[in-house]
Amino acid sequence: MKILLIGASGTIGQAVARNLGARHQVITAGRSSGDHRVDLTQDASVAALLETVGRVDAIISTAGNLHFGPIGEMSAEQFNLGLQDKLLGQVRLALLGQRTLNDGGSITLTAGVLAIEPIRNGANATAVNAALEAFASAAAIELPRGIRINVISPTLLTESLDAYAPYFPGFETVSAERAALAYQRSVEGAQTGRTYRVM
Amino acid sequence: MKILLIGASGTIGQAVARNLGARHQVITAGRSSGDHRVDLTQDASVAALLETVGRVDAIISTAGNLHFGPIGEMSAEQFNLGLQDKLLGQVRLALLGQRTLNDGGSITLTAGVLAIEPIRNGANATAVNAALEAFASAAAIELPRGIRINVISPTLLTESLDAYAPYFPGFETVSAERAALAYQRSVEGAQTGRTYRVM
Repeated sequence: MKILLIGASGTIGQAVARNLGARHQVITAGRSSGDHRVDLTQDASVAALLETVGRVDAIISTAGNLHFGPIGEMSAEQFNLGLQDKLLGQVRLALLGQRTLNDGGSITLTAGVLAIEPIRNGANATAVNAALEAFASAAAIELPRGIRINVISPTLLTESLDAYAPYFPGFETVSAERAALAYQRSVEGAQTGRTYRVM
Repeated sequence: MKILLIGASGTIGQAVARNLGARHQVITAGRSSGDHRVDLTQDASVAALLETVGRVDAIISTAGNLHFGPIGEMSAEQFNLGLQDKLLGQVRLALLGQRTLNDGGSITLTAGVLAIEPIRNGANATAVNAALEAFASAAAIELPRGIRINVISPTLLTESLDAYAPYFPGFETVSAERAALAYQRSVEGAQTGRTYRVM
């Protein structure tokens, strides 16, 4: 397969590139690294990337920023950061990318455990991740030509434990390598409209 | 109780006003009708409303617009309409409103059945409604002073059947009067962080 991977420089993205790169042609893109530059918050940037890369069999995003902070001090503008970046950025990639996928191709986006396990400071993440999971469930029933869409929702990565442990008290972690298996299942499997939880 | 109800001119809003108005002081606000004017997409408009109304025991929103249309033709800009209006509009009301609620007060927002039951043309609604349900689950664990937050997620209203039946094939409907009971449960009950489904 020819696979476009956005966010390949991140911890999950690197593991996904290693997993899928063993069997497929993986083209990488990111905000500041990879084979191509792309800003998922801009229609023109995503369209230009898709035109440059051409037809592919799978599009994967492991990209997206959120706002973390206490609900008591959160502004609508801060909440909107996650809506515009991790949520609408990935939705934009799906909306534009459906047109450059080969028949039977797939879209795989990234949510996260906070969708169903709220933590302090995580209201934006919970809302954004849940919206991504729900979006995939709805888009899947409409996509034409056998195109599939799934979301991967991993819990805290073992590799991120040092940085984030205080925010995720008592959470078990998973390795990025194990999370990458879920991306493999989404891309090489046949299911659509589902959330693969890696916990 | 002193209750602020935004969206009181809508089908659900009217039923909620009738239900709660029988026992409480209900102050209404809306885009173009009610005791006060408010635009939930603007911080300044929401802040001005809250300052005018003063301390309340409950804030309810039955307001919010979405984009409906086929996924194959949907633009990110169209998807963002629902994010900015029904999702961020109600989140803004919660974020600003928490400060003017009395101790033990409540926030009640409105999602909808599409959060868990996707239909054609409904990807934006599914994502937005799921995000609202998730937001309440996360905000609830952080809100201070006994402040509660819940979401009501009604299925298609009987009163809306003539207009929307073709989009909801085979869906059972509920009356706005029955949906209003869930708002009563949220306001007069003691639960927080939950979604009341009215199906």
